[in-house]
Amino acid sequence: MNEASKKSTITKNILKIKGSKVTEFTDILASEEPLEIRISVLQGSPPILNKNISITMRTPGNDTDLAVGFLFTEGILASKDQIDQITLEDNKAHLYLNNSKNIDLSKLERHFYTSSSCGVCGKASLAALKTVSLLPPSSANFQVDKTLLHSFPHTLNRQQTIFNSTGGIHAAALFNPTGDLLGLREDVGRHNALDKLIGSCLQTSKFPLDNHLLFLSGRASFELLQKAVMAGIHFICAVGAPSSLAVEMAIEHDVTLVGFLNEHRYNIYNGAKRIKI
Amino acid sequence: MNEASKKSTITKNILKIKGSKVTEFTDILASEEPLEIRISVLQGSPPILNKNISITMRTPGNDTDLAVGFLFTEGILASKDQIDQITLEDNKAHLYLNNSKNIDLSKLERHFYTSSSCGVCGKASLAALKTVSLLPPSSANFQVDKTLLHSFPHTLNRQQTIFNSTGGIHAAALFNPTGDLLGLREDVGRHNALDKLIGSCLQTSKFPLDNHLLFLSGRASFELLQKAVMAGIHFICAVGAPSSLAVEMAIEHDVTLVGFLNEHRYNIYNGAKRIKI
Repeated sequence: MNEASKKSTITKNILKIKGSKVTEFTDILASEEPLEIRISVLQGSPPILNKNISITMRTPGNDTDLAVGFLFTEGILASKDQIDQITLEDNKAHLYLNNSKNIDLSKLERHFYTSSSCGVCGKASLAALKTVSLLPPSSANFQVDKTLLHSFPHTLNRQQTIFNSTGGIHAAALFNPTGDLLGLREDVGRHNALDKLIGSCLQTSKFPLDNHLLFLSGRASFELLQKAVMAGIHFICAVGAPSSLAVEMAIEHDVTLVGFLNEHRYNIYNGAKRIKI
Repeated sequence: MNEASKKSTITKNILKIKGSKVTEFTDILASEEPLEIRISVLQGSPPILNKNISITMRTPGNDTDLAVGFLFTEGILASKDQIDQITLEDNKAHLYLNNSKNIDLSKLERHFYTSSSCGVCGKASLAALKTVSLLPPSSANFQVDKTLLHSFPHTLNRQQTIFNSTGGIHAAALFNPTGDLLGLREDVGRHNALDKLIGSCLQTSKFPLDNHLLFLSGRASFELLQKAVMAGIHFICAVGAPSSLAVEMAIEHDVTLVGFLNEHRYNIYNGAKRIKI
């Protein structure tokens, strides 16, 4: 399979809400898929090293660039002369390296375990989630008014203190179906903002969160969907776009997923049944 | 040290450029610092487990929530009843867990190595960078016109194909000091977009990149600065805000760092000497 055969975007039929108008629309989503980066260091036969270095969630396209750039910026690869061959197959990039510049094996050691420790690998983690005793989607059988969601960004703006002062931070917030703000956490990392929010709810016995709405200040990635589903959340609104894998995960776990939310409009990517249209 | 003693924001004196006007200004930055999450599982003495689980770059504040939420969303912790005690010290959160719900040690195994494989741990990585033979900053002694930078977002908008169709993707682009676009890569992950760009330059012998300008479509985090510095880049422009650690790193490596760049304005966080003001 060559580099061009994986798509950078996919299409999805969605509902567009703008004021009182509801229209069907074919949206284009950025693809998000795991890429496994493997290296073999050749110095006679068998190779002195043959290991998975990383699994990263990425948009397919320029996968060779990504693998080479990642190995370089991590300090493993110093020059293109060290690369004998690169093969791409499905979601795997395999670099065959000569040892002309003495690859620093200790730096490789640091990376050996990222593949097994990776929290974001699509298939592995999707499978892992299924072993967790999730709440049945039927428990999240509430409905909200179509216009309720528009109030979330404004409510957040009044509260989001670090963002207001710096303009450079993500927020994750929890609302109930009548639109009351129940919790808010901020962080430079959006996954951290969500972990903080879920961690605070776990400690204050707000669990389970199946009758709550999650609001995200940025885009909706697979990783954020994964964390929300772990906490039993079945309604997610994001200010930005969702990735392809985020939508896939929303469908699989019966999560209502809203994107591009502002005071005037939003898109429904899945689970319109929880919104009174 | 308690949770409140670490600050979520820091202040920095910067230059604000708006049209022909240059003003000095005290900006507020979101803090970014590493948090080490360690757990001990108590079941008699000594503990059956005592390990670092993760180092994550985060904004200080609600560190207990972050540690608890992270362990929960990663499937390690199932209930708050498992937590006997949490201590916070400097940038370390230590959770003492009982084994009342049989913590899944195999899930812990998956995480044992994230601390050693972590590419974003502040001090460890800053130290590691110093062992790399970086280009001397003096090699990046070019200057650009004050108004040149305003053209970057527009140039990118004309090119950034996946973003234009999806609205949900990051871009990293390389310009020369006269404003020509030399390379552009896109991805749902901004670190991937930069790795793709650097990887393509490495393969096409564009290295070193010390006489080039890097443009980032989002915020400037420590991780992005780290990758750019590895490639010899000494001029970085971001559409969004820089984090505290990104600015710290720019100062340490004599990198010109511009934030909040659009067609009308930008802020200079470090290295104004490379801009003709």
